[in-house]
Amino acid sequence: MALRVAVAGASGYAGGEVLRLLLGHPEVEIGALTGGSNAGTRLGALQPHLLPLADRVLEPTTPEVLADHDVVFLALPHGQSAAVAEALGPNVLVVDCGADFRLRAAADWEQFYGSAHAGTWPYGLPELPGHRAALKGSNRIAVPGCYPTAVSLALFPAYAAGLAEPEAVVVAASGTSGAGKAAKTHLLGSEVMGSVSPYGVGGVHRHTPEMAQNLTPVAGEPVTVSFTPTLVPMPRGILATCSAKAKPGVTAERLRAAYAEAFDGEPFVHLLPEGQWPQTSSVYGANTALVQVALDATAGRIVAISAIDNLVKGTAGGAVQSMNIALGLPEELGLPVNGVAP
Amino acid sequence: MALRVAVAGASGYAGGEVLRLLLGHPEVEIGALTGGSNAGTRLGALQPHLLPLADRVLEPTTPEVLADHDVVFLALPHGQSAAVAEALGPNVLVVDCGADFRLRAAADWEQFYGSAHAGTWPYGLPELPGHRAALKGSNRIAVPGCYPTAVSLALFPAYAAGLAEPEAVVVAASGTSGAGKAAKTHLLGSEVMGSVSPYGVGGVHRHTPEMAQNLTPVAGEPVTVSFTPTLVPMPRGILATCSAKAKPGVTAERLRAAYAEAFDGEPFVHLLPEGQWPQTSSVYGANTALVQVALDATAGRIVAISAIDNLVKGTAGGAVQSMNIALGLPEELGLPVNGVAP
Amino acid sequence: MALRVAVAGASGYAGGEVLRLLLGHPEVEIGALTGGSNAGTRLGALQPHLLPLADRVLEPTTPEVLADHDVVFLALPHGQSAAVAEALGPNVLVVDCGADFRLRAAADWEQFYGSAHAGTWPYGLPELPGHRAALKGSNRIAVPGCYPTAVSLALFPAYAAGLAEPEAVVVAASGTSGAGKAAKTHLLGSEVMGSVSPYGVGGVHRHTPEMAQNLTPVAGEPVTVSFTPTLVPMPRGILATCSAKAKPGVTAERLRAAYAEAFDGEPFVHLLPEGQWPQTSSVYGANTALVQVALDATAGRIVAISAIDNLVKGTAGGAVQSMNIALGLPEELGLPVNGVAP
Amino acid sequence: MALRVAVAGASGYAGGEVLRLLLGHPEVEIGALTGGSNAGTRLGALQPHLLPLADRVLEPTTPEVLADHDVVFLALPHGQSAAVAEALGPNVLVVDCGADFRLRAAADWEQFYGSAHAGTWPYGLPELPGHRAALKGSNRIAVPGCYPTAVSLALFPAYAAGLAEPEAVVVAASGTSGAGKAAKTHLLGSEVMGSVSPYGVGGVHRHTPEMAQNLTPVAGEPVTVSFTPTLVPMPRGILATCSAKAKPGVTAERLRAAYAEAFDGEPFVHLLPEGQWPQTSSVYGANTALVQVALDATAGRIVAISAIDNLVKGTAGGAVQSMNIALGLPEELGLPVNGVAP
Repeated sequence: MALRVAVAGASGYAGGEVLRLLLGHPEVEIGALTGGSNAGTRLGALQPHLLPLADRVLEPTTPEVLADHDVVFLALPHGQSAAVAEALGPNVLVVDCGADFRLRAAADWEQFYGSAHAGTWPYGLPELPGHRAALKGSNRIAVPGCYPTAVSLALFPAYAAGLAEPEAVVVAASGTSGAGKAAKTHLLGSEVMGSVSPYGVGGVHRHTPEMAQNLTPVAGEPVTVSFTPTLVPMPRGILATCSAKAKPGVTAERLRAAYAEAFDGEPFVHLLPEGQWPQTSSVYGANTALVQVALDATAGRIVAISAIDNLVKGTAGGAVQSMNIALGLPEELGLPVNGVAP
Repeated sequence: MALRVAVAGASGYAGGEVLRLLLGHPEVEIGALTGGSNAGTRLGALQPHLLPLADRVLEPTTPEVLADHDVVFLALPHGQSAAVAEALGPNVLVVDCGADFRLRAAADWEQFYGSAHAGTWPYGLPELPGHRAALKGSNRIAVPGCYPTAVSLALFPAYAAGLAEPEAVVVAASGTSGAGKAAKTHLLGSEVMGSVSPYGVGGVHRHTPEMAQNLTPVAGEPVTVSFTPTLVPMPRGILATCSAKAKPGVTAERLRAAYAEAFDGEPFVHLLPEGQWPQTSSVYGANTALVQVALDATAGRIVAISAIDNLVKGTAGGAVQSMNIALGLPEELGLPVNGVAP
Repeated sequence: MALRVAVAGASGYAGGEVLRLLLGHPEVEIGALTGGSNAGTRLGALQPHLLPLADRVLEPTTPEVLADHDVVFLALPHGQSAAVAEALGPNVLVVDCGADFRLRAAADWEQFYGSAHAGTWPYGLPELPGHRAALKGSNRIAVPGCYPTAVSLALFPAYAAGLAEPEAVVVAASGTSGAGKAAKTHLLGSEVMGSVSPYGVGGVHRHTPEMAQNLTPVAGEPVTVSFTPTLVPMPRGILATCSAKAKPGVTAERLRAAYAEAFDGEPFVHLLPEGQWPQTSSVYGANTALVQVALDATAGRIVAISAIDNLVKGTAGGAVQSMNIALGLPEELGLPVNGVAP
Repeated sequence: MALRVAVAGASGYAGGEVLRLLLGHPEVEIGALTGGSNAGTRLGALQPHLLPLADRVLEPTTPEVLADHDVVFLALPHGQSAAVAEALGPNVLVVDCGADFRLRAAADWEQFYGSAHAGTWPYGLPELPGHRAALKGSNRIAVPGCYPTAVSLALFPAYAAGLAEPEAVVVAASGTSGAGKAAKTHLLGSEVMGSVSPYGVGGVHRHTPEMAQNLTPVAGEPVTVSFTPTLVPMPRGILATCSAKAKPGVTAERLRAAYAEAFDGEPFVHLLPEGQWPQTSSVYGANTALVQVALDATAGRIVAISAIDNLVKGTAGGAVQSMNIALGLPEELGLPVNGVAP
């Protein structure tokens, strides 16, 4: 019997991508679709690529509309998830694509988001040591941020194997959909085409503490991340270039072996053959993360690079993957592994 | 029991897209993959987005390698299909993504391709009146050109209903993958980004006679097409802007009714609601064609616009759709309808 | 002695481009810069590419601020120019980059812009027969629309020589800066990259009557234009593909001769050598228009294609060129002819 | 009296950009233009954006053709400059846009370029301490690599002021023109649009020793650079994100003061106001470098970011600027400071 699934925030990029994936999920029946200012609008006018849902009309985001579903995906602005989730009760699996329940330390939340901490839910990055087990049977899932997904997957094997010093440096390039669908001048096509621009420089991006939170327990010592995100002229994709000093005695072979072992058996995360580096087009539209790693002997650094689609493995795909795990379904169900390229 | 399917020319864009679709087709088992100069290379180095096939090695394109399959897709340079097809025999369904068997008039072939005419196979555009029936049970399929697909779908309803004068004017914008994967200076990213460029202007593009061949029988009178293709800075997609003088007495209502009727029941071709125009992002990666039509009363012209993904509905998707029909499978099997957007 | 020049609407794309050109104009001293909601803001925050003006602060757009200049460029929303111009008096050369004073027929204005007609000023397309003379000594200039510039330059030679039937069909591709800098969802980078989308289809785009107004007197008979604009993924540039039935007896030679003669001596409009077609990258940032023409003998149509930079020859460059003419300066002063490519 | 200037390698991206700048240089008369396989071709077919030179025909790259000029720019493949330069004699100013004479240590050259070291010429980065003086009167100039230009400008002030530890980490995003105009599959528009891809990872990119060579003398201690270049979907531009651990006691104020002082009086390098970060569109087509710097207190790192146009300040503009210095002309002559944006 199909799961009835609702999506709150169906007019945005994250909500639209959740719907695109759910339309290909064999165990799902799409229930209520809700929007904020777009309530009352045909989905076909907002998401013209989702043909089978074109005549659906968005309802307002209220507990009444969302109740009576097996699963509810929340793709809402930060700070709105807690109230909705509370009203839904424990029998509904709530998957929050927002940031509200990602951070464990209230102080981190308050510093980076400037409001009261809502709490912490099981974290939807099953490849990170310990997290897959915590997702099984859970009725609440916090979907990771797109950058922390890319960065954690690129770096955790080095930390898990004790090969990297705890000061990581990350520069990530993201497609513009990561910045959302709200109309802002600096996100106009005229502004972003032909341009690369950094933002949130100097340790102030909200995803920074989430990265440290993910890597510290794996490393067994406090990891700091110097993180610089940049916007590049493409709709989707993240390429995260991550590095850290190699601990004494690390060899390229040991490094490679650590990554091969960390990703062994993972359906969605792959270490590329030596000499081949990930590019974002390979994972366009797919729930796949591609990773490669090298040892720069001159600089003494481990350089690990990952490519994901920020809207799939970085948001909606990670969300569906975690839903599958929580509900005891096959983890790969309904999730594309092949990118749409060229 | 799964169909064994081979793909000749698996290193190019058309071949890669056939593979991407076949990987999602529930009745298909992927057999031999062949290449020309790329024979001997891992597919993972050539098509890094096709993860499950990454360790496959391309074989040479010979009848021996391709024999012993139920279906063989040919994605070869023009002029190479006939010899391969002949060697395969009538028990193998051969689906030719090239141009060799599209044109009925030998004179057209000779004028536009400059070689001897190989023949004519059933034409894989099932939405065009009469063609779906001809595909059923066929063991040979000529996949239409990408531009003729977009243009024929945009214009045939007007001609079928006797609403348009037989002189069509078409300007189409295409993503660069339509020009293939061979390395040429004018197709470099540095050249195509930030630029729109026309080519094949003045009636000399090879797809021109194919458009006339499609529309003439529907119109019941000889249709000429003034066709100008342009290259635009995106990897995929065709937007075809097509117009023709309206016959006397045509109204917007009659025009719309003709299109609604022509596409009624079609799984992959849709007339958009009034006021909404197709854009290529809506069909990115999908086998969908979106069409809209308007009557310009001042200029006295019918303007019909279609959007397709040149690699899917325009090539590989049309090919798989026609394969499904030929083999008596459900027509929609394994074909995505939702675009990957944004 | 330098001309004192003010720019009203300096925060938008047209205003910014006027400034970029004026910074390279040897006879100009940049005076007041004004904005609407951006009054009070540093120009460096709005136009970070205009380094020498970075510390200028925008003033409000009032007659007091704009008075006491030799030339005032208006880059304002439609409908705001008349009041400003009236207050400035006849001693100030007012160059309106907006649409307010382009159309001669009040009925056209009312139908396409929905407000009362402000009047008609000398039209800043000096290459169009008769217009250069009318600009000399004028104290008011209406800068043409970007599409009418591209289309008129591509088609007028055919009409001037009596070679084309009076029903033109135009499909134009434009970069997104033509849609302005106001933040709108459909103009977000995520929406426009990877997509081509038509708009204003069916004869309703506001630039349509301006094209007819330009071509009709040249043809000596009423010309209608079926015009379809499309947005393509690049910041700048227009490629206009224009066609019309050839009058009986037209030959390719006669056609080519007509274009060569029409552009003879023009500093900014060039007929390309046979076989070379214009592309927008060649005119990126330049006041140049490139044109090519062909005769499609099968379809019986003349196909003329032009490429311009919508912000330069299509707006700010045409404005400065016309200013030069009006003031008796060398027409080419301060205007780049070489594109920034690749 | 005008300088007679020849350009060897006029068909490529660097040569084309040198020509675009020289066309706007008031003291220059363009002499011989040469090419390799393109000798005998009209420049208009190769560089259609350089209208005034369209009818020039490329000559072969020989000493005879290049002799009898005041200045010769070499934009040749690596390894070809030495022979040409030798034949030209000391009275000709030779400006080499290639790598042949950049590196001081023969061992570096041999390791990274795999051939015999040709020698070392004065280095055309006048903003780097000590280099402007060395360029004055020189008859040989080695134009820096594009990445070393961006990285050295971003980091040298921190090292000059003794604020940064000597282990730098750099991730740079480059437009595709940096990879040249030779037709290669991975540089096709279809491949690069919608994708970010790293290359030369792990300390093997040829520009790495050049960065260390530039920063080490400024720092007064050996500086290592962990350098990762990435290709992004735009034709031009480099954004270099550079960081290094802050030495003990460094404050944001001291850091900012060091940069302000380092760039004081520089015509082409600017420290942006606090809070504003450089983006590549601001320097599109200009010889400008924009820099911003921040202190990440949590990570303990200095983060400095620069934006340049790889073809202008990163190649041709730097070359012309150095030519001006060498010849005693005003340093800014003929060089654009304003970007072409949006």
